[in-house]
Amino acid sequence: MFIAIEGIDGAGKTTLARGIGNMLLGEGYRVYMTKEPTDGMENYAGDGVELFLKFTINRYAHQREIDRHIKNGEIVICDRYIRSSYAYQFEGIAEFFGNSEKAWEWMDSVSEIIKIRPDVQIYVDVDEETAMERISRRGLRNPHFENEQKLRSVRQIYKGFQWDLIVDGGRDKEAIISETFEKIIARLRQEKT
Amino acid sequence: MFIAIEGIDGAGKTTLARGIGNMLLGEGYRVYMTKEPTDGMENYAGDGVELFLKFTINRYAHQREIDRHIKNGEIVICDRYIRSSYAYQFEGIAEFFGNSEKAWEWMDSVSEIIKIRPDVQIYVDVDEETAMERISRRGLRNPHFENEQKLRSVRQIYKGFQWDLIVDGGRDKEAIISETFEKIIARLRQEKT
Repeated sequence: MFIAIEGIDGAGKTTLARGIGNMLLGEGYRVYMTKEPTDGMENYAGDGVELFLKFTINRYAHQREIDRHIKNGEIVICDRYIRSSYAYQFEGIAEFFGNSEKAWEWMDSVSEIIKIRPDVQIYVDVDEETAMERISRRGLRNPHFENEQKLRSVRQIYKGFQWDLIVDGGRDKEAIISETFEKIIARLRQEKT
Repeated sequence: MFIAIEGIDGAGKTTLARGIGNMLLGEGYRVYMTKEPTDGMENYAGDGVELFLKFTINRYAHQREIDRHIKNGEIVICDRYIRSSYAYQFEGIAEFFGNSEKAWEWMDSVSEIIKIRPDVQIYVDVDEETAMERISRRGLRNPHFENEQKLRSVRQIYKGFQWDLIVDGGRDKEAIISETFEKIIARLRQEKT
C-alpha cells in the first residue's frame, strides 16, 4: 500500500506520517517512510514551470524506489507527492499560459511519466494563519513558499481535489494520528478479505 | 529572424552556423549566435525521459534570451534546438511508454512551454559513417550519444520532419555555407518586400 500525505507547510504532515508509521510498525507491518522532494533534488531555482519540471524529474526517479518497496510488501508512507507539485506550482504555470485550464492539462500531460500513484491520498488541512505560526516557530526555510498569501492560494488548490481522507490539522496531534491510523488499519484489513 | 540548425553530431552544424553567421555579418546584418544546450545545462544524467525534461528546462530559459535578440532586430542562429531533443530522446521515451505515438504526444505536450519557435529550420544530413569518422577525429565527447547505432536511429527521426532546407553535410563546406547563405538572404529580402 502506498500512502501519500499532502498539505501546506506547517499543516503537520511530517508529524502525522511519523506517528502512523510508528503505530503500523507496532502492529507488525513493515513500513517505508519517504518524502518529496528527495535529497536528489538539485536546486529550487526557477518559476512555476521550471519547478514543476524539476520536481517531476525528481519524482520520476523516486517512483522507482517507491515501487521497489511496494513490491517488497512494505507500506510506503510519502510526505508530499504529486499533488504538492500541482498545488504549489499551478499559479505560476497558469500565469505563464495565461489560462488555468491549459495549465492543468499541461501538468497532467507532463505527469504521465509518473506511473506509481498513491492508493490512499490524505490531505492535512490547516488554516494559513496557524500554518504560518508553526512555520515561524521552527524558523523560515523558504520565504518564497512560506508566506501567508502563497499558503492561502496553495490551500485552495489542495481543497479542490478529491481525497481519500481529510484530516483537520488544527486538532490535537495524538488524536489525529490515532484516527488516521484506525482508518488505514481498516483499509488494510479490508484489502486482506 | 530565428534560424535553427539541426543534425546528428559530426554533420557540420557548427561550421555551417559560423559560416553563414560571418557572411550575414559581412552583409551588414546584426547576428546573434547561440547553441543548445546552453552552459546553464546542469548535467546529462538520466534516461530519455529525464534528459528530455532537462533539455526542455534549459530551452525554456534559453527562449527568453533568443526572444530578446529577435526583438532587438538581430538574426538569431541557434546550433540545435527543439528537434534535437525529439531526435535524440524519442527512442528512450518510446521505450518508457512502450508506445511511439504516446511518446510523440508527450514530447509535444511538454514542449508547449517553448513558445519561441524557429522561422527557418535547417537540417544538415550526413550518413552516420561519415559522422563517426569526424567525431573520432576531434575526439569522442559523449559515448552515449556518439556511436554509430545511436546516430543511425537519431538520423531517422531527423529525416522524418518537414524542413525549410535540407543541406547535404557530406559536401564541401564552402559550397554548403554559400548555398545556405544565398537561401537565407533570399528569404530575408522576401520578408522585406
